[in-house]
Amino acid sequence: MRKDYLFTPGPTMVPPEVLLAMAQPVIHHRTAQFSAVFEEVNEGLKYLFQTTQPVLTFAASGTGAMEAAVANLLRSGEKALVVRGGKFGERWAEICQRYGIETVNIDIEWGRAVSPGEIEEALAREKGIKVVFTTHCETSTAVRTDIEAIARITRERDVLLVVDAVSALGAEELRFDAWGIDAVVSGAQKGIMLPPGLAFIALSERAQLKAQQGDLPNYYFSIPKALKSLEKQQTPYTPAVSLIIGLRVALGMIRDEGLENVWKRHALLAEATRAGLEALGLKLFSKAPSNVVTAFEVPEGIEAGRLRAVMRERYGANIAGGQAQLKDKICRIAHLGYMTESDTLLVLNTLELALRELGYACERGAASAAAVRVFESGKG
Amino acid sequence: MRKDYLFTPGPTMVPPEVLLAMAQPVIHHRTAQFSAVFEEVNEGLKYLFQTTQPVLTFAASGTGAMEAAVANLLRSGEKALVVRGGKFGERWAEICQRYGIETVNIDIEWGRAVSPGEIEEALAREKGIKVVFTTHCETSTAVRTDIEAIARITRERDVLLVVDAVSALGAEELRFDAWGIDAVVSGAQKGIMLPPGLAFIALSERAQLKAQQGDLPNYYFSIPKALKSLEKQQTPYTPAVSLIIGLRVALGMIRDEGLENVWKRHALLAEATRAGLEALGLKLFSKAPSNVVTAFEVPEGIEAGRLRAVMRERYGANIAGGQAQLKDKICRIAHLGYMTESDTLLVLNTLELALRELGYACERGAASAAAVRVFESGKG
Repeated sequence: MRKDYLFTPGPTMVPPEVLLAMAQPVIHHRTAQFSAVFEEVNEGLKYLFQTTQPVLTFAASGTGAMEAAVANLLRSGEKALVVRGGKFGERWAEICQRYGIETVNIDIEWGRAVSPGEIEEALAREKGIKVVFTTHCETSTAVRTDIEAIARITRERDVLLVVDAVSALGAEELRFDAWGIDAVVSGAQKGIMLPPGLAFIALSERAQLKAQQGDLPNYYFSIPKALKSLEKQQTPYTPAVSLIIGLRVALGMIRDEGLENVWKRHALLAEATRAGLEALGLKLFSKAPSNVVTAFEVPEGIEAGRLRAVMRERYGANIAGGQAQLKDKICRIAHLGYMTESDTLLVLNTLELALRELGYACERGAASAAAVRVFESGKG
Repeated sequence: MRKDYLFTPGPTMVPPEVLLAMAQPVIHHRTAQFSAVFEEVNEGLKYLFQTTQPVLTFAASGTGAMEAAVANLLRSGEKALVVRGGKFGERWAEICQRYGIETVNIDIEWGRAVSPGEIEEALAREKGIKVVFTTHCETSTAVRTDIEAIARITRERDVLLVVDAVSALGAEELRFDAWGIDAVVSGAQKGIMLPPGLAFIALSERAQLKAQQGDLPNYYFSIPKALKSLEKQQTPYTPAVSLIIGLRVALGMIRDEGLENVWKRHALLAEATRAGLEALGLKLFSKAPSNVVTAFEVPEGIEAGRLRAVMRERYGANIAGGQAQLKDKICRIAHLGYMTESDTLLVLNTLELALRELGYACERGAASAAAVRVFESGKG
């Protein structure tokens, strides 16, 4: 018998009720029946993004929504500021480059978060920056960025703030309207508890206006077209109907739990994981730890790939390794989406077992004890 | 009790075994487990496209793969020839326009197919055309185009032939390698029997080479990147895992039936539908009828919307109306994918019932009788 648990920062585990909703017969999208589902979904997305503004849905992975932001919110010849502190920050710069957009890059040591002051300074130094691209949780380093503070800077200026919250949405506090963000992109396969295949983008009024004036080539990811279709609870091209039907159920679960409770749950699981890892004598990698995913440094003498293989093959617990320059240096445990205290104890316990099997010296039950202490305190 | 049948040209009905496969727990995509599934899927796609060349899969609707073709197979300043005989032919021209590509358009009266001679003439007349964009089945008019004959022209020249087979794939005979086509794009929610959310593109050797030299902006739909990932049975960005797991089952069903039998089945159902419609005194719209979808002109005195509503609400039979200039003029019945003789009889019978209810004079059972005659002949 094989039983698998996904502690990877996307795809994440999907509730059976969502999986079964998606197994219903497909409905046609150009019908009142579909529009009624989509209307409910769009209300749920607004709640999740904490906005009264439209949230667009594309059949794509999160990267598609990132490209939509670049190709619609910039005009040729404009300049952008990009925070590069990991693989996903780098992706913003890569997409800009493909569209001939000059970027000013703030290169942050992997594991550290950009400070709002660094953004402010760059905006003062470099004239003509029209968009700032940031990453709410940089999944490759498990770092959280203070989006609220950065938005305080951009919202006073003629500069759009675009946030990659592909992994952060639903895990980290994010208040689109109250903070004054201009665009947030996300994906379905993380905190939203869906299989991959949907990408989202929320847009402020000034971002919507800017998109109407865009001149960069785009078609499938056209924001003006998607905004127009949304007025009739439709999408310009065939939507991923079954995923949207699943999304209705997943968003209903988030609404039932209450978004603030969802955030608190992620904070609690992340805190317990950090405590458990430290109790095992492991070093946390991120200097600004997120509630999305926790990274630990693989101890001397242990091979990261081997550790993950033992956890996966022996115990069904799938955790992620490091990406790019962090390959073999760190492992990452997600707290994302359909995840409970029990799941967190499971991953800590199986990590302890695997470490011991590979000859690492740690006390039996140490991780559990530390995590349980956090759960009993109830504070993330 | 409500029971729905989709006779719309996408989305189409999905076999329960495919729906249930997709309801399995999500697996992580950067694993040997996923790559094994994807390898099997990629073999199945090659069989379906009748090619030994790579077929790329994007999380997107079919339009995404159309954009991939334009943004990768043309260089800035190049010229393209576009056959515009309906909504989807027009889409090729629109995408080219967004990318600043000059198009020479062959405008075909809706309902008629382009003749290979018209393509040959345009290529001789207009110098410097690098790509010809065509539509195998123009879903908006139910017209089939002779791709084999057109490929005979392009394969001898320094001109790529790109075919939109979004609705045709799996319904119409298509032999990528043998005919010498350069790119075929398709989608999941038609003949492939999957919910929407996947787009495909098959590429000849010279198309792959051309994509490596592309200079138009693209990122998510980058063909060079997708080709590189495919070597390791991966995709550059998170794939729509659950749809790909469903795709394995759907492609297995096509292989079990045998592709030529699948084509024959579609031909038979289309022939029976045409016979049934004519027996009801209805006029077929397309002058080059496809095996994908059949269009009939809505008779004088009958309102198209009303006819569709009666069929849908009273009998659960969903057929499509006309698009753009054909709205209210035609209705369309698909023969796509998970579709049998029984389904075809069902749609013809419910159409007859609905027409009679709306006061149209036709003989009871006439459509059935004509369709059964075709089934007994076994010839599509």
